[in-house]
Amino acid sequence: MEKTEGSALITDLYELTMAASYFENQMFEPATFSLFIRDYPPFRRYFISAGLADILEYLENLRFTPQDLEYLSHTGLFKPEFLSYLERFRFKGDVYAIPEGRLFFVNEPLLEVTASMIEAQVVETFVINAAHLQVMIATKASRCVQAAWPRKLVDFSLRRTHGTDAGMKVARASFIGGFTGTSNVLAGKVYGLSVFGTMAHSFISSFESEEEAFRAFARTFPENTVLLVDTYDTLAGTRIAADLGKEMAQAGKMLKGVRLDSGDIAALSRDVRKLLRDTGLDNVTIFASGGFDEFKIRKVLGEGGDIDSFGVGTKMGVSADAPYLDMAYKLVQYGGRPVLKLSPGKTTLASEKQVFRFTTSKGKLRQDIIGLRDDDIEGSEALLEKVMSKGKANAKQPLLPQIQERFLEEFFRLDEKYRSLDKTEEEYPVELSLRLEELQSRLVRQLRDEAGGVEES
Amino acid sequence: MEKTEGSALITDLYELTMAASYFENQMFEPATFSLFIRDYPPFRRYFISAGLADILEYLENLRFTPQDLEYLSHTGLFKPEFLSYLERFRFKGDVYAIPEGRLFFVNEPLLEVTASMIEAQVVETFVINAAHLQVMIATKASRCVQAAWPRKLVDFSLRRTHGTDAGMKVARASFIGGFTGTSNVLAGKVYGLSVFGTMAHSFISSFESEEEAFRAFARTFPENTVLLVDTYDTLAGTRIAADLGKEMAQAGKMLKGVRLDSGDIAALSRDVRKLLRDTGLDNVTIFASGGFDEFKIRKVLGEGGDIDSFGVGTKMGVSADAPYLDMAYKLVQYGGRPVLKLSPGKTTLASEKQVFRFTTSKGKLRQDIIGLRDDDIEGSEALLEKVMSKGKANAKQPLLPQIQERFLEEFFRLDEKYRSLDKTEEEYPVELSLRLEELQSRLVRQLRDEAGGVEES
Repeated sequence: MEKTEGSALITDLYELTMAASYFENQMFEPATFSLFIRDYPPFRRYFISAGLADILEYLENLRFTPQDLEYLSHTGLFKPEFLSYLERFRFKGDVYAIPEGRLFFVNEPLLEVTASMIEAQVVETFVINAAHLQVMIATKASRCVQAAWPRKLVDFSLRRTHGTDAGMKVARASFIGGFTGTSNVLAGKVYGLSVFGTMAHSFISSFESEEEAFRAFARTFPENTVLLVDTYDTLAGTRIAADLGKEMAQAGKMLKGVRLDSGDIAALSRDVRKLLRDTGLDNVTIFASGGFDEFKIRKVLGEGGDIDSFGVGTKMGVSADAPYLDMAYKLVQYGGRPVLKLSPGKTTLASEKQVFRFTTSKGKLRQDIIGLRDDDIEGSEALLEKVMSKGKANAKQPLLPQIQERFLEEFFRLDEKYRSLDKTEEEYPVELSLRLEELQSRLVRQLRDEAGGVEES
Repeated sequence: MEKTEGSALITDLYELTMAASYFENQMFEPATFSLFIRDYPPFRRYFISAGLADILEYLENLRFTPQDLEYLSHTGLFKPEFLSYLERFRFKGDVYAIPEGRLFFVNEPLLEVTASMIEAQVVETFVINAAHLQVMIATKASRCVQAAWPRKLVDFSLRRTHGTDAGMKVARASFIGGFTGTSNVLAGKVYGLSVFGTMAHSFISSFESEEEAFRAFARTFPENTVLLVDTYDTLAGTRIAADLGKEMAQAGKMLKGVRLDSGDIAALSRDVRKLLRDTGLDNVTIFASGGFDEFKIRKVLGEGGDIDSFGVGTKMGVSADAPYLDMAYKLVQYGGRPVLKLSPGKTTLASEKQVFRFTTSKGKLRQDIIGLRDDDIEGSEALLEKVMSKGKANAKQPLLPQIQERFLEEFFRLDEKYRSLDKTEEEYPVELSLRLEELQSRLVRQLRDEAGGVEES
């Protein structure tokens, strides 16, 4: 099987046909493209930057292999000169980006690429693909984290993520959004995340009795015994688990937890807690799973559920209520001149930009201003950092725990109304700088004055 | 970057902890697991089998590498004897499956794995991951195909699929569901699909004028000139394209098509067609893109849109209105005894099974019966085929065009009411065979008689 990861052919054909025409027309002038989200999906009023590490790795390693070129040649679309150009192709551009884990908002450039036209254009498909998924999932995950706070959440979504690459990226992005770890073993290995998981119902069913299954598991994992107690009857199962827990305690071991996966979780969890306490097992944790997302977590906790941590699967892993974002990668400057696209609800912001963030004296997020990159806006923090120069990523990339820490620190400084789990009309204030505003007006006038009239979508 | 594809660690940790305990308890008896979908998502009354090829490839090549074992050892969870077992681990089981491209329905086993307990269990996560995505996407794609029939559809979703693996699998599964091709170049290479695409708005904006951009592109691709005409004004753009088309015709070339990506597509497409015809360009195709799914296709065609083919992107590629399926992989037999799980709405069907399909004398699909694998049900077609024996896939796997053909042939033999794009209550009739019914009743009675009572979820 051909490898997908890192392949230069993971791209839309039009990136390559445009490139061929740019090449033939010798259009190598520098272009800047801007990556941003045009609109909030329902129930969302913020986004979390995520996916940058993958984009930088892709840009650094982008190569067309001899097999790639052979395939492209075989399509009959491309001339030999262009294929020779692709053979030597390297991404040598600059990238500015909002670091992973930071909050950002609609229309703010999450990332800007400046490179010669072909280089900046052909990376579009992958750049969107990588950022889109991880921003969407980190944002969805953070809603679950907020609903459960300060309880712990574990990503259980791998079986129903859209493919295996998504399984990896969901583990990573949900960690950025505040999750504790994942069930995905490879994500544990690759990203250094904590991995969680013990047994399925099939494990219990394959023994003669529940007790036998529990004992077998505890023998194999005396340090990591979390027992799934709902295969037959949750409270009966918990009693068996509690008896085993008492035995383990007498032998100097400890039952780590029980898992509930069905039924009325709020009521069951209280009964299970009482039963555990009555058996003297105060430190046994209660882990709940089964169809959880931010709404079900809130509901179960609102009903008095006594739960220490949640396994959160499918609905987080596919961002079920908002499975895509209106993310776009648009040309904003070419050959030194700012470019703007005008169309109702789809206007792009011209030129190379920066996002300036203001906080209150108490540290609360107050307002963002989108400005020109060389704007100097006092009292604000500039969010976009130069993360790649001439095709080389800046060596110092933060580790995932640092990214998560940065996110959580900033998240709770965002006013609650923008963090609401529910539908809300109010948007975090984002304005344009004077100079960007003036540039936009001038370009709009120019476009209207030109023969072509107003640009559309 | 570590490769994800084909890694044995793309699995939930609990598959490995269960395996370790099975190993320690010497539980190597044969087990059968069944893969099925518990419920229809809204607006769906059928599914298309897809993803089998990836599952077979995975099962044939499943290996724990020295690096995998080193990581597992480093977690501190596993004993050396078990890690040695994993080092030698190969999947040596049998697989029965409904071939790709066939229709199937709720509760029908799409695939059954019989292998020693550990082998059958540890493949769960990947098997669900692979089948879930492709079944979901093929089904979604087929709805678009039906809405557009007999017009052609091209997968444009790569930029917003959930990761790159999804980008590949969506291209493949949408082809099975009746699409003509994809914009994804690597999918073209790997799966032999036709690839489509020409230019983005950024291409037009980077030239001094629309005409200059069109001419540049036509010079580079005289055989494959599809012009995006809506960057400034759709009809003005079409006039420029038509003039160029006339010139090309005079030079013995041919303008292939124009693409519309915004505005009132139905009305614009009619005007564009008239303009093309008036210029004598009867064979220039009109290609539409921009937010299409089955509903928007139906709407635009219902409004008299004159369109030859559609680019269908995000909403198909993430199955936006139903981004996950309730697909499960459950133990149905262990050590020769049938296993059943009882719980409201989640009852599993015990034992090794077969699906028997009845058609009317006119070839219409009439009814399916889920039976025991060795049931002999006259006048029906048995759907599950043995696709793997002792870990070796049967050599003869159909090619993608054959799979698509098989799908389309059967699809239009399914009664329209089950193919409806809209919400419908009625379900295609699926019943249990007498012998399966009897087995289920007996097992339910046994479970109820046993101390544990009724099994739950």
